[in-house]
Amino acid sequence: MARVSQEHLDARRRQILDGAARCVSRNGFHATSMQDILRECGLSAGAVYRYFRSKEELITAIADEAFSGIRAAFAEAAETTPPPAPDVLLGRVLRRMLVEEVPGGDRQAFARLIVQVWTETLRNEELAAVLGDGYSGMRQAWAELVEAYRVNGQMEADVEADHVARTLIATAQGFIVQQALFGDVRVEVLEDGLRALMSMRDPKIS
Amino acid sequence: MARVSQEHLDARRRQILDGAARCVSRNGFHATSMQDILRECGLSAGAVYRYFRSKEELITAIADEAFSGIRAAFAEAAETTPPPAPDVLLGRVLRRMLVEEVPGGDRQAFARLIVQVWTETLRNEELAAVLGDGYSGMRQAWAELVEAYRVNGQMEADVEADHVARTLIATAQGFIVQQALFGDVRVEVLEDGLRALMSMRDPKIS
Repeated sequence: MARVSQEHLDARRRQILDGAARCVSRNGFHATSMQDILRECGLSAGAVYRYFRSKEELITAIADEAFSGIRAAFAEAAETTPPPAPDVLLGRVLRRMLVEEVPGGDRQAFARLIVQVWTETLRNEELAAVLGDGYSGMRQAWAELVEAYRVNGQMEADVEADHVARTLIATAQGFIVQQALFGDVRVEVLEDGLRALMSMRDPKIS
Repeated sequence: MARVSQEHLDARRRQILDGAARCVSRNGFHATSMQDILRECGLSAGAVYRYFRSKEELITAIADEAFSGIRAAFAEAAETTPPPAPDVLLGRVLRRMLVEEVPGGDRQAFARLIVQVWTETLRNEELAAVLGDGYSGMRQAWAELVEAYRVNGQMEADVEADHVARTLIATAQGFIVQQALFGDVRVEVLEDGLRALMSMRDPKIS
């Protein structure tokens, strides 16, 4: 019997995740069944269940994948001195996640999927745990960068690094909301906006 | 027959909107019926339908109310010279909306309601139109403030005012997402974060 290559397994997994992303972003989490996903992928139940046993597992895998892409971008940034400014790093992460490597291939649809996952999280504890872990990791990574900004003289204000981390994450989350609702937000918009904020002179500090 | 005072009508309307906000934030938009809302308010169908004919009308009224509070804060800000910095104004708006005058009385629940409204918007055109109008108004108001920042020498970077407007709105939206998902975000977090960003020195500008 022929051995199935790792490449084939990966491609099949990708095909299933993309199909699931398309279904859920089109119809919502509740209205999507595993049958819908099988049909969307054009695969048999046996082929899909070998990889994922439920919708929950599929969504968790999509979230995991998004967070691991973000972690990679931060790990790379952490090795650079001086570290990339927030507009550069946030632009890089969002471009990778919402433009270049979009699960399902449609950026507005993927943004809608994320908003639907947030709603689902309010009632699904397992998914809430995956998201909670992902956000903790991001907060930690941003907070370390903020310390580096301070050490390098790039940031003057002396506020808790975690507050800056949460604010930067909020900016990205809001970008995703606007992408989901209106579909017309380019990553440049956020890069420009952050750059403008960074060019402000706060009367309380200067 | 005794005339019903405007005060009484307003209080009744408030009672219905608060009850609807509590129901929808607890159970989601789809799982909430008008019956649930009547029960939550402790009112008869006749009493409620006099004000609102459907869930959609109720949610639209809650959204309208939130946007009108935001508009009032911007109108006030527009009359101040120099205009309040983004951290001050955004802090003021979020404190009013999510701390002081929360429909339903529970700030995490209200944030969850907003995320659920976003999800519902993806399928409900009337609600999408109300949100679209509200966001257009906010973008316009922020863009005018950004121009004032520039005129007053508070902002150096020369980027499109609308991009800064969208970025600031994104920050607020992301704050609402974090409040909905994790429930532990104080408005100070965002004020600190914005102040820290405003104290950065972008190597491309300085």
